[in-house]
Amino acid sequence: MTKRIRDYGIVIGEIKTGYLNKITDVDGVVVGHVTLKDENVNTGVTAIVPASGNLFENKLIASAHVFNGFGKSTGLVQIEELGTLETPILLTNTLSIGDAIRGLYEYKISRNLHIGDTTGTVNPVVCECNDAYLNDIRGFRVRKEHIKEAIESGEKDFTEGAVGAGTGMSAFTLKGGIGSSSRVIEVEAKDYTIGVLVMTNMGRKKNLIIDGNPVGKKIVEVDNTDANLLDKGSIIIILATDVPLNQNQLKRVTKRTIVGLSRTGSNMSHGSGEVVVGFTTANRYPHSQPRTEKTLIETHSIHDDHIDLLFDAVADATEESVLNSMITAESLVGRAGHERKSLKEYEELFCVT
Amino acid sequence: MTKRIRDYGIVIGEIKTGYLNKITDVDGVVVGHVTLKDENVNTGVTAIVPASGNLFENKLIASAHVFNGFGKSTGLVQIEELGTLETPILLTNTLSIGDAIRGLYEYKISRNLHIGDTTGTVNPVVCECNDAYLNDIRGFRVRKEHIKEAIESGEKDFTEGAVGAGTGMSAFTLKGGIGSSSRVIEVEAKDYTIGVLVMTNMGRKKNLIIDGNPVGKKIVEVDNTDANLLDKGSIIIILATDVPLNQNQLKRVTKRTIVGLSRTGSNMSHGSGEVVVGFTTANRYPHSQPRTEKTLIETHSIHDDHIDLLFDAVADATEESVLNSMITAESLVGRAGHERKSLKEYEELFCVT
Amino acid sequence: MTKRIRDYGIVIGEIKTGYLNKITDVDGVVVGHVTLKDENVNTGVTAIVPASGNLFENKLIASAHVFNGFGKSTGLVQIEELGTLETPILLTNTLSIGDAIRGLYEYKISRNLHIGDTTGTVNPVVCECNDAYLNDIRGFRVRKEHIKEAIESGEKDFTEGAVGAGTGMSAFTLKGGIGSSSRVIEVEAKDYTIGVLVMTNMGRKKNLIIDGNPVGKKIVEVDNTDANLLDKGSIIIILATDVPLNQNQLKRVTKRTIVGLSRTGSNMSHGSGEVVVGFTTANRYPHSQPRTEKTLIETHSIHDDHIDLLFDAVADATEESVLNSMITAESLVGRAGHERKSLKEYEELFCVT
Amino acid sequence: MTKRIRDYGIVIGEIKTGYLNKITDVDGVVVGHVTLKDENVNTGVTAIVPASGNLFENKLIASAHVFNGFGKSTGLVQIEELGTLETPILLTNTLSIGDAIRGLYEYKISRNLHIGDTTGTVNPVVCECNDAYLNDIRGFRVRKEHIKEAIESGEKDFTEGAVGAGTGMSAFTLKGGIGSSSRVIEVEAKDYTIGVLVMTNMGRKKNLIIDGNPVGKKIVEVDNTDANLLDKGSIIIILATDVPLNQNQLKRVTKRTIVGLSRTGSNMSHGSGEVVVGFTTANRYPHSQPRTEKTLIETHSIHDDHIDLLFDAVADATEESVLNSMITAESLVGRAGHERKSLKEYEELFCVT
Repeated sequence: MTKRIRDYGIVIGEIKTGYLNKITDVDGVVVGHVTLKDENVNTGVTAIVPASGNLFENKLIASAHVFNGFGKSTGLVQIEELGTLETPILLTNTLSIGDAIRGLYEYKISRNLHIGDTTGTVNPVVCECNDAYLNDIRGFRVRKEHIKEAIESGEKDFTEGAVGAGTGMSAFTLKGGIGSSSRVIEVEAKDYTIGVLVMTNMGRKKNLIIDGNPVGKKIVEVDNTDANLLDKGSIIIILATDVPLNQNQLKRVTKRTIVGLSRTGSNMSHGSGEVVVGFTTANRYPHSQPRTEKTLIETHSIHDDHIDLLFDAVADATEESVLNSMITAESLVGRAGHERKSLKEYEELFCVT
Repeated sequence: MTKRIRDYGIVIGEIKTGYLNKITDVDGVVVGHVTLKDENVNTGVTAIVPASGNLFENKLIASAHVFNGFGKSTGLVQIEELGTLETPILLTNTLSIGDAIRGLYEYKISRNLHIGDTTGTVNPVVCECNDAYLNDIRGFRVRKEHIKEAIESGEKDFTEGAVGAGTGMSAFTLKGGIGSSSRVIEVEAKDYTIGVLVMTNMGRKKNLIIDGNPVGKKIVEVDNTDANLLDKGSIIIILATDVPLNQNQLKRVTKRTIVGLSRTGSNMSHGSGEVVVGFTTANRYPHSQPRTEKTLIETHSIHDDHIDLLFDAVADATEESVLNSMITAESLVGRAGHERKSLKEYEELFCVT
Repeated sequence: MTKRIRDYGIVIGEIKTGYLNKITDVDGVVVGHVTLKDENVNTGVTAIVPASGNLFENKLIASAHVFNGFGKSTGLVQIEELGTLETPILLTNTLSIGDAIRGLYEYKISRNLHIGDTTGTVNPVVCECNDAYLNDIRGFRVRKEHIKEAIESGEKDFTEGAVGAGTGMSAFTLKGGIGSSSRVIEVEAKDYTIGVLVMTNMGRKKNLIIDGNPVGKKIVEVDNTDANLLDKGSIIIILATDVPLNQNQLKRVTKRTIVGLSRTGSNMSHGSGEVVVGFTTANRYPHSQPRTEKTLIETHSIHDDHIDLLFDAVADATEESVLNSMITAESLVGRAGHERKSLKEYEELFCVT
Repeated sequence: MTKRIRDYGIVIGEIKTGYLNKITDVDGVVVGHVTLKDENVNTGVTAIVPASGNLFENKLIASAHVFNGFGKSTGLVQIEELGTLETPILLTNTLSIGDAIRGLYEYKISRNLHIGDTTGTVNPVVCECNDAYLNDIRGFRVRKEHIKEAIESGEKDFTEGAVGAGTGMSAFTLKGGIGSSSRVIEVEAKDYTIGVLVMTNMGRKKNLIIDGNPVGKKIVEVDNTDANLLDKGSIIIILATDVPLNQNQLKRVTKRTIVGLSRTGSNMSHGSGEVVVGFTTANRYPHSQPRTEKTLIETHSIHDDHIDLLFDAVADATEESVLNSMITAESLVGRAGHERKSLKEYEELFCVT
């Protein structure tokens, strides 16, 4: 079984995790991958399905935070305007966002025959990182058919590491990919879950910090290969929760992912776009005006006095997700013989068990 | 020859226009169209090429303003972050943004072999409106090959109206499309040009105002067909200038397009995304660090005391562009027998010559 | 009785007004003025009290929109972050914001003894325009005591024109000041009210438009005094409603004030800061966590399908408020003999009755 | 002599510091304090003077970043709009911003007689934290006269800790205050300086991290007094540099302060407003249009390829500034007998020399 960062004795923070310690601990969330691997090909698609049922008809409250906008993620403008999410969130490589959008459109219109006919269109949310170091990104290997496949392969106990869209990603000049973590908090005597999923493709080797330990510096002492490469990556962070929040609150929670990311040693470099998309499953907005006696839409939110619980949980879960994305990824030789070693190869520098 | 709004005696503002009274009056700017028409098909691509030469190697200062983000335009996040533009700007229908991005990527990487290899990727700017009322948008008729074709067909004296991406668009429940206008202003004894191009797909019939004249109300009195349709469109506004501006100044200029748009009677409806992208050709940022004696990048800007000249010019040019987009478009019967009449059919309600 | 713009036959839009056709038609809202007039002194304070009861303990949902941030208004940052309002909104001259903040702090802490003791502080919202043309702004005539006086003098049928903070303001190089208007809309068989109050201090004479009529051009033909003065003003727009809205919706509604303002001929000049603050009285957030069985906060909002009704109403009410601020203001000779004529003096150029 | 964090063997990052390791290492920058101390009074003013000469006539490029807008800082809106700074930056307690604004206005208009007469007004930048725990904030002890005094007492080797506006501040439930640090980087064979000054008033005791060491947890083990107090503070971060930057670049640099702050253990709590103001002294904008042969304003900026050097330096300098603000502050018993211990009292938990 794949060892995660906790299996090395690294525990981020004091808040308890969810059952799987993954974003899918939030009820309704599943994650699916399509992985494309070949000689020079290391890429794919990862789909975060935020809830079961028809998202277009029954939208979620969502928020996006762009800490560094050097990236090509799409769909964020409408999330900012309306504060809602109506599709699965897709991750892929930078040059494949066009194909991913096309595939997501086909998926949605095949399930919602009135889209583009009697009602408006749908807002595709597709986020990306540049995997060109290990992947022949110029080859456009992701095809629109892969989108449906990724969405429909969604599961609770999904794989982390060099898989799906994370297949060819690099983090801290080591192997990056997909990682996740979750936290459970109690608000007013009720348990809620907060989950994070990251696609890591940022950072410079010397800067890696593991729970306060400057592991990157120690790695560079034993292997300074590529230590001077510029950071030309990005990180995509997806946040899910079932805590009842309004849009302002969700935006604020979403921003605290940056706190956890900072603690892993990323300085949010020029070439590294930091993009966060968050949603709560606790309040839903119907696409069409409901025709019931109570025609106003009713939403619920916690009092701001409790929101620090979420801030803490999100910071910790993000930090742990980044570490999980690295420790679960195997070393890989990819395009043009470029190599990224797994963090696992340096376990003696940080393992505390 | 196609009559434009000035040919009906309508003159917006007092500032003189450029030679063509089009966005292409700005030196270096050309506009190309691919028009797709068939029984239920009325769509296409319009490309605004902001300057000659390799834009990726020699970027322009750019800014985006989203007044209403109910839209799927892509590339705005990076423009906001870096303040630069490195591709032509594409317009198309909403469901075709994926194919347009793919086509634009192929176009750029074929001309820049280091993209996705030894350097990073490129930020595709693709804006859209929903032409589903007149076009079989669910048919995905725009193909990636059309992108190169639109870009390479760029010319100075381009066609307006129901052409290119504007083929199937509607404005004020009449026929909309592509329209343009320009103004020439003098700053410190030197002439500069400001050009606007719009793709109009917003507004309700009764609200149309032509130079202060509530023409929409008058039209509804004689023909109230579809007068109660919800506004499910958008407007894309592209602003070009050769005035030397810094990024803050350009952002401010870009926002004044909204002033002109307001005067045409649009209330920026819920369903109508208002997206503006502006650029100046006067300052350039090299992709790679220049290795000359003077290694700092030098840029120039006018003093803020002169910026009102641009604000006035942009408001007027936008107002006139919207009117040109309508008056140059012929009546059209499209998908499912849906019809949009040309504004021309009501010329007796506004013609002052 | 003071004539308002409708008394000259000018009717903006087709939506019916509230009883007073003022912002105070929104239940709970009152407006108070302190007017300071002396030889070179023409200034004051205007207070918009958004609801009765203790606002600090029972906050309103609020939103701010800054179209042009060339201004010194305070309190907007926290409104943007938390989406709430906890004080009356004050208007005054630019150099008096310090004294107004101090006065508002004293007013709030005298009524909330735990502020700055066992709980946090309070966010003072103070907006300003520069009345230096007619007022000895360097004399700091507004004192902190005036704040309480303005708040406590709040009434429903408040005075418009050259009164309170509007005493020394100029609009379109004529006399400006305080103006207001309201609209009543029906959503799901229930009537709601939307009110706007403006403090006008922007625009150039030649640009004034009254319901599509280019009155400014006509005025300049008969009197071009000061026609070339730069616009060094601002406009503050306050929006109140009882429509149940969430924060994203309120922000969007708030932005549509810009549409109405554009139609009066303002080009949002460099020197003219456009600042909008909006609130809804329909949803309240308690300062302290409520300890009831139902501990989540419940809010209500209309479906987005109805929001165009608000957009239209806000655009119209803003346009009418600007005109009311001018038509109700008398001509004035102020500091250094500077003069601003009343719009009334040109009534033959626009009166349609 | 006061020991700073480096005197305990703590070295943040690998980049060399400036001569004083303070923000004043940036040429032209001085910092002045007015400290007010009495039985229940622990407050004051700190002024960061960004350059010598008349700032109003010769403005600096500036940028603000609000990570958490739960705060009352003023002047940020205009910085965001115009990208310029024209006054010293003042720090004080929350309830004293009104008096500080008034004092700053008086200071500026006494030196610029045309302000509010023949030219416009001036944008006062005043940032605040809530020192009510140790200070009788309801007493409004800061008077407008203190502003001039703080500005004119500016010096290079200014005091850190519980001084000026930092007198009554708390950080991580220990004593906070004013702290600073600087870094020197080489771009294109030339040395530049980046300086940071913080006013710390945020964080919970258990969360404090010193260079990766979870010192807060260790402190709580020996003294958990007030460990459960909510975070009701804020942090103000001022960034100065002489690196030639454009406004977009400066904004991006400013945001990286958040990275360093995160590494000290702050989770940017609900009650803690995080506000950053940055400026560069390398490009100046004249208030009035220059009348020389070369009438365009010329600015310079580094190529983006070098900007990571600044990102790294800013993150490190911010982290060190926070630690300096704490380690230089003495323990203090203030209002109502409330106590904050100095971090110094726990030196055995982190000292590495």
